[in-house]
Amino acid sequence: MSDTSTGVVDLLGVLAYAELTAFLRLAEDAATLAPTLTDRAALSDLAAVEHRHFRLLRDRLTELGADPEEAMAPFVDAFDSWHALTRPSDWLEALVKAYVGTGIAMDFYREAARRVGPEIAELVEEALADEGRSEFAVERVRATLKENPKAAGRLALWARRLVGEALSQAHRVAAARPALAGLLVEGGEGQDLPEIGRLFARLTEEHGKRMAALGLTPGP
Amino acid sequence: MSDTSTGVVDLLGVLAYAELTAFLRLAEDAATLAPTLTDRAALSDLAAVEHRHFRLLRDRLTELGADPEEAMAPFVDAFDSWHALTRPSDWLEALVKAYVGTGIAMDFYREAARRVGPEIAELVEEALADEGRSEFAVERVRATLKENPKAAGRLALWARRLVGEALSQAHRVAAARPALAGLLVEGGEGQDLPEIGRLFARLTEEHGKRMAALGLTPGP
Repeated sequence: MSDTSTGVVDLLGVLAYAELTAFLRLAEDAATLAPTLTDRAALSDLAAVEHRHFRLLRDRLTELGADPEEAMAPFVDAFDSWHALTRPSDWLEALVKAYVGTGIAMDFYREAARRVGPEIAELVEEALADEGRSEFAVERVRATLKENPKAAGRLALWARRLVGEALSQAHRVAAARPALAGLLVEGGEGQDLPEIGRLFARLTEEHGKRMAALGLTPGP
Repeated sequence: MSDTSTGVVDLLGVLAYAELTAFLRLAEDAATLAPTLTDRAALSDLAAVEHRHFRLLRDRLTELGADPEEAMAPFVDAFDSWHALTRPSDWLEALVKAYVGTGIAMDFYREAARRVGPEIAELVEEALADEGRSEFAVERVRATLKENPKAAGRLALWARRLVGEALSQAHRVAAARPALAGLLVEGGEGQDLPEIGRLFARLTEEHGKRMAALGLTPGP
């Protein structure tokens, strides 16, 4: 199998596992943290969207002749660690995680999809479709901050932790999966410092936009 | 609002909350009990089906001018208690719950749908569509019992507990919601003993079929 196709299977595998766990974690947050039945149902709706995206990726992996379980397996530890280290303690933290944490992860996948063929890139875009997730989180967080502006400091710290842990897990994945890292930065991680700089500039910019949308000052 | 329409809103409300919690609990079992990623994904698929059914019911409640949250609220305690009292301790128990526990609950809704108009009855049937749930559970449980026939005794006891707790919660709901009970038995619960007898005979028969399908002897 060429590096490129390993990279593609890795990309679909990491994204499939990301969507599957996002689905399960959003469902857990809906069950345990939602303050009302309406909120519980709304977060369940978002979880179901992630499941639909998961199916798209699993089906494509199967079509490509890859075993979805094998394709996802290399990424289980990184994602499970990330979720274990960023378990929301309340509804607001769950919303910020659904928006900021998922947001930066998705930016990584989008970056990786710049170096795959148009068919896979299109599938990745479809799997990353927002479908109301951001709007829901932004609206609820802003409404809460309007009533209780003091929560902003705590949530900004929380967002910084989400991103810090995400970068740490991304680094771990990149080190273990050179073909996938090669999709992010030509030649693999650590080979082209200016390109890595530009990648992080783009990620930081998108993260800053999300923080601003929430009404939080962007992290450093 | 007439008794009939209260009954209809109750029926759609109880079923909506049943589907929403089934979705969330199946997702929890998928996250915590599935032995492989493939099983986790398969149970997630079943969870997503329940979510789709939930949406059908919520949308119809809204169309009928009812508030879905208000329609579901009277049933929250009974379902949450049932789930708290029947938390599966392993994958096999989760599968038996998804089949036997959900099965008997669905039989109740089917019974209640016999006394509503054809449009609502059709919606209830759609929301109760199996879509692979039974097949998945039966196949996995039978395969396990083939390798480990000793598990049968424990699972038969577990199924009996699921049904016992379901009947106890159903009784609680029927007492609190006479319009809904009136859909199950003409005139409300406790008014027509022969009819209650026939209802329980039908429920017992369906339950016995499910136990036999699993390769378990039916409970008394």
